[in-house]
Amino acid sequence: MAEIRGRIAGGALPPGDRLPSVRRFAAAMGVSPSTVVEAYDRLEAEGVIRARRGSGFYVTAIGLPRDPPLMALGHADAPRAPDIDPFWVSKQSLDAGPSVLKPGCGWLPDDWMPVSALRKGLRTLARADGALLTEYGGTRGPAALRRLLIGRFAEEGIGATLDQVMLTGSGTQAIDLICRLLLRPGDAVLVDDPCYFNFQALLRAHPVRVVSVPMTPTGPDPAAFERVLVAETPRLYITNSALQNPTGATLSPQTAHRVLTLAQTHGLTIVEDDIFADFEPAPSPRLAILDGLNRVIRIGSFSKTLSSAIRCGYIAARPEWIEALSDLQIATSFGAVSPVAGELVAGILTGGGYRKHMEEVRHRLTRARLEAAEKLGRLGIVPWLMPRGGFYLWCRLPEGLESAMIAGRCREEGVILAPGNVFSVAQSAGAFLRFNVAQMGDPRVLTVLARAMG
Amino acid sequence: MAEIRGRIAGGALPPGDRLPSVRRFAAAMGVSPSTVVEAYDRLEAEGVIRARRGSGFYVTAIGLPRDPPLMALGHADAPRAPDIDPFWVSKQSLDAGPSVLKPGCGWLPDDWMPVSALRKGLRTLARADGALLTEYGGTRGPAALRRLLIGRFAEEGIGATLDQVMLTGSGTQAIDLICRLLLRPGDAVLVDDPCYFNFQALLRAHPVRVVSVPMTPTGPDPAAFERVLVAETPRLYITNSALQNPTGATLSPQTAHRVLTLAQTHGLTIVEDDIFADFEPAPSPRLAILDGLNRVIRIGSFSKTLSSAIRCGYIAARPEWIEALSDLQIATSFGAVSPVAGELVAGILTGGGYRKHMEEVRHRLTRARLEAAEKLGRLGIVPWLMPRGGFYLWCRLPEGLESAMIAGRCREEGVILAPGNVFSVAQSAGAFLRFNVAQMGDPRVLTVLARAMG
Repeated sequence: MAEIRGRIAGGALPPGDRLPSVRRFAAAMGVSPSTVVEAYDRLEAEGVIRARRGSGFYVTAIGLPRDPPLMALGHADAPRAPDIDPFWVSKQSLDAGPSVLKPGCGWLPDDWMPVSALRKGLRTLARADGALLTEYGGTRGPAALRRLLIGRFAEEGIGATLDQVMLTGSGTQAIDLICRLLLRPGDAVLVDDPCYFNFQALLRAHPVRVVSVPMTPTGPDPAAFERVLVAETPRLYITNSALQNPTGATLSPQTAHRVLTLAQTHGLTIVEDDIFADFEPAPSPRLAILDGLNRVIRIGSFSKTLSSAIRCGYIAARPEWIEALSDLQIATSFGAVSPVAGELVAGILTGGGYRKHMEEVRHRLTRARLEAAEKLGRLGIVPWLMPRGGFYLWCRLPEGLESAMIAGRCREEGVILAPGNVFSVAQSAGAFLRFNVAQMGDPRVLTVLARAMG
Repeated sequence: MAEIRGRIAGGALPPGDRLPSVRRFAAAMGVSPSTVVEAYDRLEAEGVIRARRGSGFYVTAIGLPRDPPLMALGHADAPRAPDIDPFWVSKQSLDAGPSVLKPGCGWLPDDWMPVSALRKGLRTLARADGALLTEYGGTRGPAALRRLLIGRFAEEGIGATLDQVMLTGSGTQAIDLICRLLLRPGDAVLVDDPCYFNFQALLRAHPVRVVSVPMTPTGPDPAAFERVLVAETPRLYITNSALQNPTGATLSPQTAHRVLTLAQTHGLTIVEDDIFADFEPAPSPRLAILDGLNRVIRIGSFSKTLSSAIRCGYIAARPEWIEALSDLQIATSFGAVSPVAGELVAGILTGGGYRKHMEEVRHRLTRARLEAAEKLGRLGIVPWLMPRGGFYLWCRLPEGLESAMIAGRCREEGVILAPGNVFSVAQSAGAFLRFNVAQMGDPRVLTVLARAMG
């Protein structure tokens, strides 16, 4: 079965081609004909091949990779090495049991989250209007939360109207909807290198080419950015501006202006993921603010600050894009965010305690960041930069060590790390690991890590 | 701007082509050159065209329809007539104010829903573990709800394992993920005629052809089904088996067997949407049961029975498909259903009151159905069949009346109807309306309808 699948995936057996006869294939593989019969039967049951009466088996379209990128989503017989699979960290972290330590994961421990505000919000919801608790709600999500976002944008200097904001099931879903609306097969999409691994996983679900620009401590390298725009004419640039994931880098005003000017010249649309905004000690430059939501689309979510268990993201963009994205969301998810989720988020954000909670989280993170850097330093693991905020620390391993290998060893001992190359389109970050400083309280993290480094 | 957009959409101006000069276009349109300059500038700001220095304006790829079906998602200058737009009913119903009557909508009024169970569920959640309230949860959604579904499947005779079930953000999202995994550009997808309008809206977001088979009171017409399988070799058939939307038809055992046999012969995969299952007075035949989740994928949700405001759907299928769909859901939404939503649903389903609640709803619907049929009958509006359950009544208007026209008139008077052709790929249902018998308590529905019928 694996052999036939491989031939189909590799193009040696295109759809419509006849498979080798049972006898010939059995001889070639050195197995009995009945083994081949069983394999063909199973492949037929899966729809990969189809029997035509009296004429043998033929390849259908189903066994084919949809397009090269989607391969990784599928059922490759040989699993990819963790260093090049952008799904590795998320799958490991999401499905890990409670005893597993997760310094590689992308969220705060639950005792850092505003659990009492969530409990209070749920109790308030329990008394809400029956319609709110049972009906789909409007096509763009609850107006209360959208108004609240517009108010926050106004404080930053973005004058958005209600028809420029929609809520989505998550920040990831926001980006996915944008890709579905704006990208066409073969388009190039630009990301930072390194960038959040799920940008890559997401783009594999689209028939596009992914190109990258090296990240610097002040944003993407402007000269490289211009070169890639000229050479590849990407349609979309997907980036984090505040506390970039994984580096924690902060966009400088000069880079922001340069990136936006180049985007204008080359007809590039930008998706700016603002998910870490509230972790900043003070606001840093934003492409969406400079641009005024013209060619920059802002997306965000509350997964990192309020709860990942309540799925809610948003998109702020030109009204005509919001209209088309909202239609697309009806078509593909029927309705926007859960009104119950939207109401819960709005309630907590306006509850008064939110700013104080985030202030405490920021202080706690500052301490944890310094402590983690100090401990890692003792192992020769050095931060690429000290971020102004957030929970990530992007660190270089001592010379000669490969992060995928270290991550594999630590996984066996119940510690999930995030090896550098899952973040790197160019696969140039094999010497790096991303640490979540809030998930390093348990001393076993450092013990296991030290042992894995040999 | 509309003229240029139209030429681009129509293919008269393909990407890369130069636009007419400002002077020539101004003369052709009978407007001043400055008007054309402004229009070109705005189109450039939108990215639809791009200026090349000293050489004029050129068409970019962005103005293009992504593929013919997606046109309807976009920004057509002339809105489509309501009878041929599958978005019309959902957008009208979702965004309607509380004073609007919605006999065309697809959900029960909130006072028919288990509001007190939801309130109790929210209060229970308020005391839940902090991790449940704040973390993403596993890649396939909370195991409690998945186990509960497996238990229900077992009662029906489907022996599914935990790795065959995943939770999704909604039933619609479940179908969308399946389409993304299994369909390739140009594939044909088969739906019933009439069918749930959002199947059509959803399929417009995929580069596929939609073909249809006429619905009969006992399922799709078997002879037509075979003809379309031979002629179009569709990859996927998307259907409701229990209380089909909009007709309320019930699949017969003979048709179920015939459809499944033909699917096997022609390599067709079937998505069976089970969303109305709990509205049946007694279980009717199911393709997923006959087939044992081999080439039939079962999807469902709790939006019609528990709450539409808590987004939660599911997919039950072969383990290898669930694995690939789960990866795709991580890539495109990061994680499955909200764990909070999943827990709430599981809590209510196991709470004991659910079966009793649904029994009451079924009795109430029987009365409402008879009452609605009687009232509509007085206007000469006659049900195509009397469904065994559910809240839909698919009705034929008196000779000579067109449902889109009636729906348009009623909308102006604050009553949203569901005109037949939004459900019909072949546009053959202009004489039909779908009524939601639970939304017809207000006497104004019939008054406004009678007036609209002249």
